Amino acid sequence: MELGMIGLGRMGGNMAQRLIKSGHRVVGFDPSTERVKEMVRLGVIGAASISELIDKLVSPRAIWCMVPSGQPTEDTVHELGGLLSPGDTIIDGGNSNYKDSIRRAGNLAEKGISFLDAGTSGGIWGLDEGYSLMVGGDADAYRRIEPVFRSLAPSSEKGVGYVGPSGAGHFVKMVHNGIEYGLMEAYAEGFELLRAKADFNLDLTQIAGIWRYGSVVRSWLLDLVELALKEDPGLKNIRAFVEDSGEGKWTVQESLDLDVPLPVIVAALQVRFRSRQDQPFGNKLLVALRNKFGGHRIKTE
Amino acid sequence: MELGMIGLGRMGGNMAQRLIKSGHRVVGFDPSTERVKEMVRLGVIGAASISELIDKLVSPRAIWCMVPSGQPTEDTVHELGGLLSPGDTIIDGGNSNYKDSIRRAGNLAEKGISFLDAGTSGGIWGLDEGYSLMVGGDADAYRRIEPVFRSLAPSSEKGVGYVGPSGAGHFVKMVHNGIEYGLMEAYAEGFELLRAKADFNLDLTQIAGIWRYGSVVRSWLLDLVELALKEDPGLKNIRAFVEDSGEGKWTVQESLDLDVPLPVIVAALQVRFRSRQDQPFGNKLLVALRNKFGGHRIKTE
Amino acid sequence: MELGMIGLGRMGGNMAQRLIKSGHRVVGFDPSTERVKEMVRLGVIGAASISELIDKLVSPRAIWCMVPSGQPTEDTVHELGGLLSPGDTIIDGGNSNYKDSIRRAGNLAEKGISFLDAGTSGGIWGLDEGYSLMVGGDADAYRRIEPVFRSLAPSSEKGVGYVGPSGAGHFVKMVHNGIEYGLMEAYAEGFELLRAKADFNLDLTQIAGIWRYGSVVRSWLLDLVELALKEDPGLKNIRAFVEDSGEGKWTVQESLDLDVPLPVIVAALQVRFRSRQDQPFGNKLLVALRNKFGGHRIKTE
Amino acid sequence: MELGMIGLGRMGGNMAQRLIKSGHRVVGFDPSTERVKEMVRLGVIGAASISELIDKLVSPRAIWCMVPSGQPTEDTVHELGGLLSPGDTIIDGGNSNYKDSIRRAGNLAEKGISFLDAGTSGGIWGLDEGYSLMVGGDADAYRRIEPVFRSLAPSSEKGVGYVGPSGAGHFVKMVHNGIEYGLMEAYAEGFELLRAKADFNLDLTQIAGIWRYGSVVRSWLLDLVELALKEDPGLKNIRAFVEDSGEGKWTVQESLDLDVPLPVIVAALQVRFRSRQDQPFGNKLLVALRNKFGGHRIKTE
Repeated sequence: MELGMIGLGRMGGNMAQRLIKSGHRVVGFDPSTERVKEMVRLGVIGAASISELIDKLVSPRAIWCMVPSGQPTEDTVHELGGLLSPGDTIIDGGNSNYKDSIRRAGNLAEKGISFLDAGTSGGIWGLDEGYSLMVGGDADAYRRIEPVFRSLAPSSEKGVGYVGPSGAGHFVKMVHNGIEYGLMEAYAEGFELLRAKADFNLDLTQIAGIWRYGSVVRSWLLDLVELALKEDPGLKNIRAFVEDSGEGKWTVQESLDLDVPLPVIVAALQVRFRSRQDQPFGNKLLVALRNKFGGHRIKTE
Repeated sequence: MELGMIGLGRMGGNMAQRLIKSGHRVVGFDPSTERVKEMVRLGVIGAASISELIDKLVSPRAIWCMVPSGQPTEDTVHELGGLLSPGDTIIDGGNSNYKDSIRRAGNLAEKGISFLDAGTSGGIWGLDEGYSLMVGGDADAYRRIEPVFRSLAPSSEKGVGYVGPSGAGHFVKMVHNGIEYGLMEAYAEGFELLRAKADFNLDLTQIAGIWRYGSVVRSWLLDLVELALKEDPGLKNIRAFVEDSGEGKWTVQESLDLDVPLPVIVAALQVRFRSRQDQPFGNKLLVALRNKFGGHRIKTE
Repeated sequence: MELGMIGLGRMGGNMAQRLIKSGHRVVGFDPSTERVKEMVRLGVIGAASISELIDKLVSPRAIWCMVPSGQPTEDTVHELGGLLSPGDTIIDGGNSNYKDSIRRAGNLAEKGISFLDAGTSGGIWGLDEGYSLMVGGDADAYRRIEPVFRSLAPSSEKGVGYVGPSGAGHFVKMVHNGIEYGLMEAYAEGFELLRAKADFNLDLTQIAGIWRYGSVVRSWLLDLVELALKEDPGLKNIRAFVEDSGEGKWTVQESLDLDVPLPVIVAALQVRFRSRQDQPFGNKLLVALRNKFGGHRIKTE
Repeated sequence: MELGMIGLGRMGGNMAQRLIKSGHRVVGFDPSTERVKEMVRLGVIGAASISELIDKLVSPRAIWCMVPSGQPTEDTVHELGGLLSPGDTIIDGGNSNYKDSIRRAGNLAEKGISFLDAGTSGGIWGLDEGYSLMVGGDADAYRRIEPVFRSLAPSSEKGVGYVGPSGAGHFVKMVHNGIEYGLMEAYAEGFELLRAKADFNLDLTQIAGIWRYGSVVRSWLLDLVELALKEDPGLKNIRAFVEDSGEGKWTVQESLDLDVPLPVIVAALQVRFRSRQDQPFGNKLLVALRNKFGGHRIKTE
């Protein structure tokens, strides 16, 4: 079938390629004309604007937005809402907050436009390995576009599914990322402890490799641990400054709304906050208090 | 080659079978004569006692202990120490504390007996999929017995390795299990949150299935999540009472000795402690305090 | 001076009494006419409605709202906004979210009405011991009403202050309550551990009493711990079901907005969530997973 | 009555002074002869050695050890055990591990010497405000020496008590310090958050002062917070490097032995571990993983 793809960056560009390989027709737009040109060379039908992209698609259209979450997605969906026709479908494959997706779906429904929130996992490996897709929204629209989802997925039967009403797709993706924070931190702590046991002088790369086969902790993330350690066993060229991209926070906020304790996911998020602090004031206050009640010495900076 | 196997339970029995399939000669002993008979039917050469097992092996012997950690392992290794000859090797494949392994290796070395601490992961799946093996101790002994390790592993090149001096194998296995606690809890929290979002009425089994392919959180544990949910989607027949088997605690103790924060692994362990409490006194004290300062009402049992 | 008091419940009624004892004139209104009558007996000048309360005060008026946060406060402030005159002041002494206070102050400022957000701590003990007051908003209004604040405080010089612009008072109170969660849980855990050490058979009431004098952990909350344990040493008549009233959650939400790790406060909040769960699904999943990979037995409910 | 005091440092010296003020006769020894001389000027009867100290006391003797925990206490108690007579009593007022105290009491009991483990809180303020004392061991010995305990306490009736058999005193003190970790961290987090809310530009010293009177979070530690902030509002001269002195770790170890979750106390301890790490390897691994799966950029050091 055919699909419009807005956003031809690392994610959108790779998805377009994966679709073309499966025989789909992809019309693509990106704010960077240079990027559009590159993708045209790879088989994408280029568009110089969103309206041109729409013109190059036959009704009922399906348009995938793969732009940064927040304002860029808001703007793109809004513009599309003004240009598309009843029966058309917008798919948001980005990491939008599920509440925004519910709102957007409601607004578009008033115009007869369908909206699918497609939680998408797989990162830069998706081009070759396929994307895990958890899709919420209009069930009829999902069925109509199913061939696209199945081509993006690791296989036509696996790693893809319609999970519920509008918002459900991005909600499931949000929880997915919360879990991801916990998994990553569990490995990080384990390797930290292995390294701290200096008298064993353990080869962390070797251990990651051993665990990848037959062990209870084998996983795709562990495959990446070995990959990273092979390149730089001491991780010397990396600064311990860990970003977060929102879904972890949203997961914690949701746990507050639903009164559900998530001790591991919250701890994993807070480790990242802490990694970005230098000389926390609260820690200094602990030092000051120890000095005040016990006369313990203070180290000055 | 040939190997003595002491302990023919779920783990030891399966390992014996896997070795026999690879052409090794396995002499086996178990306190249960019934169990020995069953294993003889599967190709094991039975022994009625540890000393008989030793007699049926040719020097330099290799004897694998697969008995519960703690006193049973202590007793078995001690008995073997009194019966074996210089040049023989004992392998402890159980979940022993690495400090015990260092001590045992030291005692045995005085008698010229080698000791290997072989951290073993894979559980009841190891028979078919192979075991992940992280081995510490005498490097020469490791090389001598390497064919056995390679046959137990998922493949002759993967999932197995010599990781360092005595204790290193069980230390690495301990950390492995600490990571396992964190990974399991991360998934548990995610599915808890998916379920708490009642308005989406999500199909958790389906979601586990989707995530298994192409997603960042795919792993062997996630495969098991799907398996468990397929059998009992609401987990209705399970009591939320989570045991721990020691390695998680040892990991946390080690973090105290090495001054390494492990927020996720500690949290995961504490979740299990909490699951075994009913009406915690500390929680009651919170209720009493809220009543005392704010007049908040107390629910009686 | 004189003050209008809206809400004559446990908090508002006590505050009215404390003000009357200091010689202030208090006009009071409460939805319950019975409650108004009781307070009239204690010296309050009763009003049958908010508009009557306003009529009984001389410009520039000062009206203290001591009603539940959320919708009741929203409604009361809104009604007052329609009835008061420029130069009048509304004080919100409840546990409102500071963002609501900023919004309300902005709306009222357009009408020339001042708004003070007065974080108030002290609970049911405030009548006798005074209230700790952290006030944000219009600095001129604060100075005008300062005699009221100083009479409510434990002493005219202590436990009271103007802390910053609109919202600052309720923000500081929110953090106060976040700290309170952490403090309470620290004591709860300590007493839980004392009790778990069964072989010492410790007298927790005695220990609370000892610690109250001279120790590093002495505090007002500890005074209440002793009080509660004296009444019911085993806390047998209390169900371990711990409510939270919002400020703890807001503190955690704020930490997410500001990227500040608050491991203790978050943990304390999650303990409360957990106390309200029965047979958590996530815990069941851990049991199921242990069974799947290790054959560990499942307890059925 | 009379008491021998071994160790005349900050703690022991102050205790000796407090006892002398109450009319007790104190014979003191310290490895530093200079320190002994100073204390003689303050009324202590000096001894040049432990045996001289013993000679200057009348049977049944009571000797208080106030030396660092661990080896120094072990050595001192051992030496005393060889020199004292049946009926004499040793009091260990230091922060010894309660298991050591149980062992020491057992060894001394064989010689007819009593042993009391006296958990002591109050730090450098104890001289003026008195010490909180939680005492375990031989109940008869406690009664014999009670006048000394009552003089050290804040008042003869308060802040002091016999809490149980040998080890109970140091166990209770250990839990006290565990709670202390949690309380300190709760305040530290609160003030960290207040400071992070930069747009309110809050005066933390003022807020600490307000909270000290009438609020739910008032405590002695909060008094010290205000004191510390008054001296250095931005804590600029303090390095955020927080030591721990053992009791926090022991509390966590005990929770592992007793299967009791202590989320707040553990978190508080781990904050201190973290404060002493620079560029944690685990954090770097998170950065590496994010780069591997999502192409997120790595900051180099």
